[in-house]
Amino acid sequence: METVHDILDEGILAHVAFADDGMPIVLPMIYARIEDQLYIHGAKATRLFKKLKVGLPVCINVTIVDGLVVGRSAFHHSMNYRSVNIHGTARLVEDEQEKYNALVAITDHLAPGRWEETREMTKKEAAATTVIAVTIETAAAKHRAGMPVDDEEDYDLDHWAGIVPITTAYGQPIDDARLKDGIQVAPSIRTLTSRK
Amino acid sequence: METVHDILDEGILAHVAFADDGMPIVLPMIYARIEDQLYIHGAKATRLFKKLKVGLPVCINVTIVDGLVVGRSAFHHSMNYRSVNIHGTARLVEDEQEKYNALVAITDHLAPGRWEETREMTKKEAAATTVIAVTIETAAAKHRAGMPVDDEEDYDLDHWAGIVPITTAYGQPIDDARLKDGIQVAPSIRTLTSRK
Repeated sequence: METVHDILDEGILAHVAFADDGMPIVLPMIYARIEDQLYIHGAKATRLFKKLKVGLPVCINVTIVDGLVVGRSAFHHSMNYRSVNIHGTARLVEDEQEKYNALVAITDHLAPGRWEETREMTKKEAAATTVIAVTIETAAAKHRAGMPVDDEEDYDLDHWAGIVPITTAYGQPIDDARLKDGIQVAPSIRTLTSRK
Repeated sequence: METVHDILDEGILAHVAFADDGMPIVLPMIYARIEDQLYIHGAKATRLFKKLKVGLPVCINVTIVDGLVVGRSAFHHSMNYRSVNIHGTARLVEDEQEKYNALVAITDHLAPGRWEETREMTKKEAAATTVIAVTIETAAAKHRAGMPVDDEEDYDLDHWAGIVPITTAYGQPIDDARLKDGIQVAPSIRTLTSRK
């Protein structure tokens, strides 16, 4: 379970899939994990959250791309990646404390420590937000790492082979055009950028 | 449709969802587009491709993350992104020429021009590979760009706000440990890296 948690904590986007009258739907969403719960959130009024809150079965995938695997043959090209697939049932979070904790976690998942730096959440904002939880019951982590595995006889060929590392890079923060004079980039955001 | 094609051509991973006896499944896959067809491939023997080839309805999402949107309130945090959602029906590609073209396109989608640099595909490799096509009939592109949109009264607060650009960065290629002496990094891979 540690690998599953590590991948979920490092990932940025979750792809959340469910069936709507038998038709598959998949959407990218930000998310956060607290212990064995995965949380997603959205505007109360959206069609998606009206559907999910009735307790639909969902499948959630989080994938981190680590590199391009370049073989001597096209057949042995691949990606290096770490991926988690979760099956579970969507549950509407009704407990106020759990909902609050989930919203903190989702904000801090974007940039650790960010919640504490922001203007306090209003009751109106909380009421306008739906939080859905999925218990991580069955989770499968898959990964690929390392060099291509070519056909033995292909190692004598003159084609280049190897890997190209792929990373998600955070660039320099850009101030909002309406930022008040003298406001420095927040610590959580500086930390994010220096992680690069 | 141009925006849809641009996003599909720039993306790296597609998340492919389908319903298996009513239960949603979503998996990350490499892919390529040729005109209005989206192609994915896999080993003939895998459970996934045995299911898809019978013509299941699928939903495919490709998302490119462009940045973190940092508001003065947690509520107005968001992501900048470009995303395409496609609904269609999986079709087994049986025509040999279409299958060949799709495999070329998938390899060149990883690194443009790579197919020509690799050892020729064997009949055995082609036979072991299943290619699935999905016609891009209904495709919806969504995106968010630019600065946070905070509550009007929050612009007077002393919280930092702005965006943090996020990019997918290709690192320096790493030679396969068994690469023959004197083989230089292939042109397609050099191009990929200099794109960073």
